[in-house]
Amino acid sequence: MRVEIWSDINCPWCYIGKARFERALERFPHREAVEVVHRSFELDPRAPQEARPVVPLIAAKYGLGLEQAEAAEQRIADNAEAEGLAYLRSGRDAANSFDMHRLLHFAAEHGRQAELLDALYRANFAEERSAFAPGRLAELAVEAGLDGAEAARVLADPDAYAEAVREDEATASAMGATGVPFFVLDRRLGVSGAQPTETFTAALEQAWGSRTVVPLVAVGTDENGGGDGGSDTGSDTGSDTGEVCGPDGCAVPQR
Amino acid sequence: MRVEIWSDINCPWCYIGKARFERALERFPHREAVEVVHRSFELDPRAPQEARPVVPLIAAKYGLGLEQAEAAEQRIADNAEAEGLAYLRSGRDAANSFDMHRLLHFAAEHGRQAELLDALYRANFAEERSAFAPGRLAELAVEAGLDGAEAARVLADPDAYAEAVREDEATASAMGATGVPFFVLDRRLGVSGAQPTETFTAALEQAWGSRTVVPLVAVGTDENGGGDGGSDTGSDTGSDTGEVCGPDGCAVPQR
Repeated sequence: MRVEIWSDINCPWCYIGKARFERALERFPHREAVEVVHRSFELDPRAPQEARPVVPLIAAKYGLGLEQAEAAEQRIADNAEAEGLAYLRSGRDAANSFDMHRLLHFAAEHGRQAELLDALYRANFAEERSAFAPGRLAELAVEAGLDGAEAARVLADPDAYAEAVREDEATASAMGATGVPFFVLDRRLGVSGAQPTETFTAALEQAWGSRTVVPLVAVGTDENGGGDGGSDTGSDTGSDTGEVCGPDGCAVPQR
Repeated sequence: MRVEIWSDINCPWCYIGKARFERALERFPHREAVEVVHRSFELDPRAPQEARPVVPLIAAKYGLGLEQAEAAEQRIADNAEAEGLAYLRSGRDAANSFDMHRLLHFAAEHGRQAELLDALYRANFAEERSAFAPGRLAELAVEAGLDGAEAARVLADPDAYAEAVREDEATASAMGATGVPFFVLDRRLGVSGAQPTETFTAALEQAWGSRTVVPLVAVGTDENGGGDGGSDTGSDTGSDTGEVCGPDGCAVPQR
């Protein structure tokens, strides 16, 4: 079973929701059979590259005073800590996350996406030093087990994995996701937001229970390669074969 | 969109069906958004490690004379060549494929599964030298861009990735697959056997058209973190939050 999680690294509810989902996954009896994939979703594709302190950004976004914005950030921090997550109580910043998403797609190709995602969240939410400091992403890539020189090349080329990021975002949009985190189980069940762990447990159970229900477009034919398989495509190739090999051998074509 | 293909490397219809599917994929307008994953399916888990010539195996399996078995193998070769595939007209052999499947899971972790699968098919169906010759798998791993020493370690440890192979096989069995190739598109549509390219095209179009239809287990709440989200889990945690961050900012918890 595959769980895709659309997230942004700038999104505290993604950080918190991921922890809640992971708690559900830890308790899920079939957890070994669950693959988790990060999908890209930029909250603000027009955000500048330079990091800015988060509290004034919150204030500007909601039309709040700085004190109220600070209180909001502290309540989010409380929620994170309630999940056992480290959270930088002051000085957190934010910037454009496009490069992080590109790097996560590069990491996926090398089997290191989960490690890099954890490193990025930790750097962005829990560490004094900004995740957006010069050179920091390449360092985090190395911490995640990636080749530093290769990662630097990916970061230096703005087109590298850009299409993969945009494709993820287009899919989220087509699914109607307007915010993150957004969880999709085997493309048959969705969960929106940092839901309680119990909701993730229910979703995992529901998706698992229905995971083998897959209708066939066209059924394979008998061992003679003829039979009644017949595709539903209205194909006019004259071929209705769907030959298989099974425990008793392979279909043997008559022609 | 993700297409999972259950196959065995010993299975000529898997080799042929893969080519037919790939032709459909090449012509598919959204091909860049399609990820293809190999899934393991051993036709004969009890096959010996030592390679044996294929024609006598076919004869024994079907109770055919050697000449008839040879003719059957030639007809399969004709079908392969009709798809533009190289096929060894004589001397093809077969053996246990468990190690190949384990190695394919290792390759997946390193982003080299497609390359290794192609190398294995080529070695098994098109090359004079047996894919089962001593040391050949480690060589093919290197040709596919994997680290040779790491691949050798995986091959030397019979438990490495064994669980992943068995999990794939259990999933195929739960889906009712009794033969391969078996194609599953986004876990919502299946194609059994080496169907004509047109059938794969129809399946890709059908799965693409329905790919964004994902019901939600629980809908995210409004920006105040309250709202009417409500999970369907009967949770008694007292929390009905499903907080999200969106283009307009993040949910701010009241507590």
